Amino acid sequence: MGEMAEEKTKIAIAGWGNVGRGVYESIKRNPDMDFAGIITRRPFEVKKEFPSSSILDMNLFDFASFDYSNPLSHSDELWFWLHGRVDVAVLCGGSKNDLPVQGPFFARHINTVDSFDTHANIPEYFDKMNKVAEKYNHTSIISAGWDPGTFSLERVLADAFIPGAKNYTFWGPGVSQGHSDAVRKIEGVLDARQYTLPIKKAIKEVRKGGNPELTTRQKHKRLVYVVTEKSFSRERIAHEILTMPNYFANYDTTVRFISKDEMKKNHTAYPHGGFVLTSGTTGNNHKALIEYRNGWDSNPEATGNILIACARACHRMNKEEKSGAYTMLDIPPAYYSPRTKGELLSKFM
Amino acid sequence: MGEMAEEKTKIAIAGWGNVGRGVYESIKRNPDMDFAGIITRRPFEVKKEFPSSSILDMNLFDFASFDYSNPLSHSDELWFWLHGRVDVAVLCGGSKNDLPVQGPFFARHINTVDSFDTHANIPEYFDKMNKVAEKYNHTSIISAGWDPGTFSLERVLADAFIPGAKNYTFWGPGVSQGHSDAVRKIEGVLDARQYTLPIKKAIKEVRKGGNPELTTRQKHKRLVYVVTEKSFSRERIAHEILTMPNYFANYDTTVRFISKDEMKKNHTAYPHGGFVLTSGTTGNNHKALIEYRNGWDSNPEATGNILIACARACHRMNKEEKSGAYTMLDIPPAYYSPRTKGELLSKFM
Repeated sequence: MGEMAEEKTKIAIAGWGNVGRGVYESIKRNPDMDFAGIITRRPFEVKKEFPSSSILDMNLFDFASFDYSNPLSHSDELWFWLHGRVDVAVLCGGSKNDLPVQGPFFARHINTVDSFDTHANIPEYFDKMNKVAEKYNHTSIISAGWDPGTFSLERVLADAFIPGAKNYTFWGPGVSQGHSDAVRKIEGVLDARQYTLPIKKAIKEVRKGGNPELTTRQKHKRLVYVVTEKSFSRERIAHEILTMPNYFANYDTTVRFISKDEMKKNHTAYPHGGFVLTSGTTGNNHKALIEYRNGWDSNPEATGNILIACARACHRMNKEEKSGAYTMLDIPPAYYSPRTKGELLSKFM
Repeated sequence: MGEMAEEKTKIAIAGWGNVGRGVYESIKRNPDMDFAGIITRRPFEVKKEFPSSSILDMNLFDFASFDYSNPLSHSDELWFWLHGRVDVAVLCGGSKNDLPVQGPFFARHINTVDSFDTHANIPEYFDKMNKVAEKYNHTSIISAGWDPGTFSLERVLADAFIPGAKNYTFWGPGVSQGHSDAVRKIEGVLDARQYTLPIKKAIKEVRKGGNPELTTRQKHKRLVYVVTEKSFSRERIAHEILTMPNYFANYDTTVRFISKDEMKKNHTAYPHGGFVLTSGTTGNNHKALIEYRNGWDSNPEATGNILIACARACHRMNKEEKSGAYTMLDIPPAYYSPRTKGELLSKFM
């Protein structure tokens, strides 16, 4: 990293869902990034989304026939497609089934960035990725995004800057994919959208510095919009939602039945956001508060942006021979930035 | 950095003013930090502030007779006092006269952390510190604190995560030392306290995503409490304040005359804080906002805390042979934290 112009970072997107599309949008907004291709199980369908000639067959890698059930296997075919073409593969698969096997598989072939977000399994996933990436001299940034990701980073910074402080994370207002999916699985539900809402009173109490103990119910409430098939009982569906353990039972939840048209009209965006609040004292019992908040009208595009900034850092770290797995806690902030060191020192300090 | 217990970091405080005292308070709150001593021009007076036997003569280094007018000179006396006793010297002198000469002088002798805050001169100061620290294998973290410091870091992060976004920094509500000092220099003024107040309407507009162009006057207003000598004209003093160029002339400023007692009763704390707001769009013109805010009832203690977290990072970086000058933009967040990697991965991600 210096004042010299860097070569562009060539990005492959592995997995073409909402986040993959967000990454694609972000590449267009970052002039130092180059779109190199998409790795997908459905190359023909993906191609249809692009205007003709804006994506070539050689930019699409068909992943359908791949057996990566052994995450430590090697594919010559993938290797040859990647090398020369790609600097960093951004892995946009799901955390439950895709990343645990795809992550190590890709880390063997190329530098990777992913948004693995099963908090409880991060240490185990880190170890797995670290072993492979280190062995093959690749750099893998795991669990990037806004939570885990920038929120993790802010929790660590604030915890270090206010020793002994108490940390609160609030999510929303925004759509939770996981909770929406859970409702969609109920018999008779055609579509569902779940909004997580932070409880303002709780945020206010934390901001005041009272360091309250807050239960799950006191921090968030949930609002669910549901489209049902006519022949099914709404009462039974509402009951199933309200009593669903972990997802809804221990929250104040409101269920609203709406029409298909209303769902399409008002609930196609995926906004999200949240707060990290850290409250404590300094020195002689003086109050101290750090608040980090973000609000995104498009959650997948926000995640895409953060993944691309991490891809920039990943590429730089790999050029500096920093191989192995990293999280956003390990990355110097300047590595995310397209700006020169001189510009950062003179305009951003 | 690993799971192994690290040795404590031994801190010397160079300069015993408000910030120096804040650093001292912070050492007491960080169990992995050890207070090693104070470097001061007034060791006898400093000693009086400590209960007898809580500080020894050997913990005080008399800096009064020092000629560091040549910042590249070497002192055997200081060298011998520092080595074995100190890992990092936290430089708490002023940015105008002290740090430009003391910084390089100390960087020759030991690892340093400072809060150099003359924004326009940071690139030049960085180069000066980098040359010396690199040559003598020391690590120097410059311009640490909350602005420059954590605010710089947040500006860079948000700029990278929302490409093309507009960045706004608001300060306050809080006491500005520099503006208070400027008023104190007016003839007839016994004491003064200047509060910088961010204009709520402007913050609201930025939060809405309007990306407004804001003038200096539209962002902050100023409130000054003044104690005067009886024989001087308050009208003349108010006029001098309101028309003072740079400091007050281009702000909406309110002057309030108060008694010595009221000043003592209501204005002895040094609260401060501020906001970094970054507003832009992602992908298909979806709004995106990142807001970082901090509020400190004690500004010097907050700065002390951040300097101590930087001293932790500084010591670790030096052990990893990362010598030269760094800002908070160059430091991985985990380096500030006293927690182990395992704890960070399992509890903070």
